Amino acid sequence: MKRLGIIGGGQLGKMTILEARKMDIHTCVLTSEYPSPASEIANEYVVGSLYDTEKIKEVAAKCDVLTYEIEHINVEVLKELEEQGKKIFPSSKVIELIQDKSKQKELLDREGIPTSKWKRITEENIEELVEEFGLPVVQKSCKGGYDGRGVFILKDREDVEKIIGGDTFFEEFVECEMEIAVMVARNSQGQMNTYPVVEMVFDDRTNICDTVIAPARISREQSEKATELARRCVEALDGVGIFGVEMFLTKDGEILINEVAPRPHNSGHYTIEACKTSQYEQFIRAVMNYKLGSTDLLSPSCMINILGEDGYTGKVKVTGLEDMMMVDSAYLHIYGKKDTEPFRKMGHITTLDNTQEGALSKALEARECLKVISENS
Amino acid sequence: MKRLGIIGGGQLGKMTILEARKMDIHTCVLTSEYPSPASEIANEYVVGSLYDTEKIKEVAAKCDVLTYEIEHINVEVLKELEEQGKKIFPSSKVIELIQDKSKQKELLDREGIPTSKWKRITEENIEELVEEFGLPVVQKSCKGGYDGRGVFILKDREDVEKIIGGDTFFEEFVECEMEIAVMVARNSQGQMNTYPVVEMVFDDRTNICDTVIAPARISREQSEKATELARRCVEALDGVGIFGVEMFLTKDGEILINEVAPRPHNSGHYTIEACKTSQYEQFIRAVMNYKLGSTDLLSPSCMINILGEDGYTGKVKVTGLEDMMMVDSAYLHIYGKKDTEPFRKMGHITTLDNTQEGALSKALEARECLKVISENS
Repeated sequence: MKRLGIIGGGQLGKMTILEARKMDIHTCVLTSEYPSPASEIANEYVVGSLYDTEKIKEVAAKCDVLTYEIEHINVEVLKELEEQGKKIFPSSKVIELIQDKSKQKELLDREGIPTSKWKRITEENIEELVEEFGLPVVQKSCKGGYDGRGVFILKDREDVEKIIGGDTFFEEFVECEMEIAVMVARNSQGQMNTYPVVEMVFDDRTNICDTVIAPARISREQSEKATELARRCVEALDGVGIFGVEMFLTKDGEILINEVAPRPHNSGHYTIEACKTSQYEQFIRAVMNYKLGSTDLLSPSCMINILGEDGYTGKVKVTGLEDMMMVDSAYLHIYGKKDTEPFRKMGHITTLDNTQEGALSKALEARECLKVISENS
Repeated sequence: MKRLGIIGGGQLGKMTILEARKMDIHTCVLTSEYPSPASEIANEYVVGSLYDTEKIKEVAAKCDVLTYEIEHINVEVLKELEEQGKKIFPSSKVIELIQDKSKQKELLDREGIPTSKWKRITEENIEELVEEFGLPVVQKSCKGGYDGRGVFILKDREDVEKIIGGDTFFEEFVECEMEIAVMVARNSQGQMNTYPVVEMVFDDRTNICDTVIAPARISREQSEKATELARRCVEALDGVGIFGVEMFLTKDGEILINEVAPRPHNSGHYTIEACKTSQYEQFIRAVMNYKLGSTDLLSPSCMINILGEDGYTGKVKVTGLEDMMMVDSAYLHIYGKKDTEPFRKMGHITTLDNTQEGALSKALEARECLKVISENS
């Protein structure tokens, strides 16, 4: 029986393990806490920090292939393990590059893959760069960003005065027609399959990608261009695994790479119901070096996140399940986190319909029913 | 959080729990051994015989609704629990009736639902019945049959001499054009949804339903008739849950009910990939009294069982996974049983294709690759 180690105990790990459980693949998870969505259904788990060298080695020793479901983990130990011959996909080189957004930007520039203009911020050049980029401008932390954290939009002088320190860079504020994404899978033989281009809609309050519509309502040419760019990104990384490539479709019709996630991605949840092979099964196929599955879309689809309701913290209570079940072709995914907090990702709903508009309308209807609050409320 | 108790720790329980894990439903399983496919991923499990009154009560106390994934369980305690107000679906009345195939036959006769001619065997009437039914004739045990066990075809006088005792009946040997089946879901409000009619192909060696082809290659009239009969069966039972209704399509074009299973069924595995709502999600919806999901078929499909290879017993070893993954649109389900034995159900493969013939050919190709043997072989 093949053994897969997964660093991270969250929902991406859980949904991967739900597939592994069908495929005769034994899973061992490194989780920062127990219970957690992934650790509850893994064959084995180890509790420890995702930066703990010894714990990562412990999981590595239990598996044939080691992967991760989150990029904020200890890379140094991955390098050491690779030198000892452990199979780690995506490789430590990929994650190191992706952990530092400025290195990602450098790679894209080097490869001639279009991305928005950017420059490193130093203590001396802030005013000069503000002059150069104009306002608004985007400030990004090189490291540690996640779900909108580490990204700041400086709108006016007041924002500039309060600018954060550390390793950051300015990025041109792009007037977006639409944010789009493509999931790309690649195995170590270099076989590469791409999923349909999707639209990503962000929640203004949280900057979390909130709604995904598949396929994106863009022209065929735009779609082909986006797919080609996504493939080039993953090739440039020499990436093995599954990758969420986020892009801006600008008001000028340009497509710019925003960033790459080296793991299953929120924008690929819809594939569980809407594609022949889900991103999770594909992830396993890619890192285990099996042949990749078909990425054909079976139906237009919409995915909507279920975030913890604002104002509620503590032990999870899901309300409205029965009403949500009344919505046709709507599929619920509750992640099983024990505690909610405002805007925490607690689950998602995917819908299928003959049109994207129909799928979106079902998704909104379903989410209107289902709320995650806390028990003592 | 709603709590579902499941009596039985096998693969049908496992696949149900894989769905429950997405639906914010807590599961507690009664399993005769640990580990077992279902107990490994349930939220809770109790180890004990499926006939153990106290253990069944222990599971019942932990859940809002109690169900089962196998019909060979203690019915008396279910009656007692129902009297105390516990919700049990399908009800004890249904399972009691189904446990005794002669009672099933009586019900069908009473309701005027076509089924093959049958008569109870007593010590005195054997010869008379052999005369009446002719040879070959089918002898069935009233109780305890499963996967072909408890069903005997008496082909000649020698077989008649060796006839088994106990409560049994003779059933007319029907010249079958095809064996077909329909999955029917019904909730306690009486909402009822049916899945497409499928073809069942049996393995001659084991009498286990080996291959299922969806939709069945029969006329529209035959399909409508089969669906109507399946609905009538479940209504006659006043069944709540999901039911596999097995039927004979005779060479004369008649459709006769063979038997009804009060749970997810081998002939419904294909629904995981091929239908909008899998039989497992539907099972949960039905017993929890949620609105039933769409049973629309997304694609023609074939399901093929993976049986333990003949000649191998002991700790499971799956071979050929990598080759099996080369087959397009083929989905593997390994159940996670720890030990194999010849012809034991160890998993299944479902394939999708534009035609039934294409799906069948992919399924045969995939199964040719994948074998379950034992480790020390």
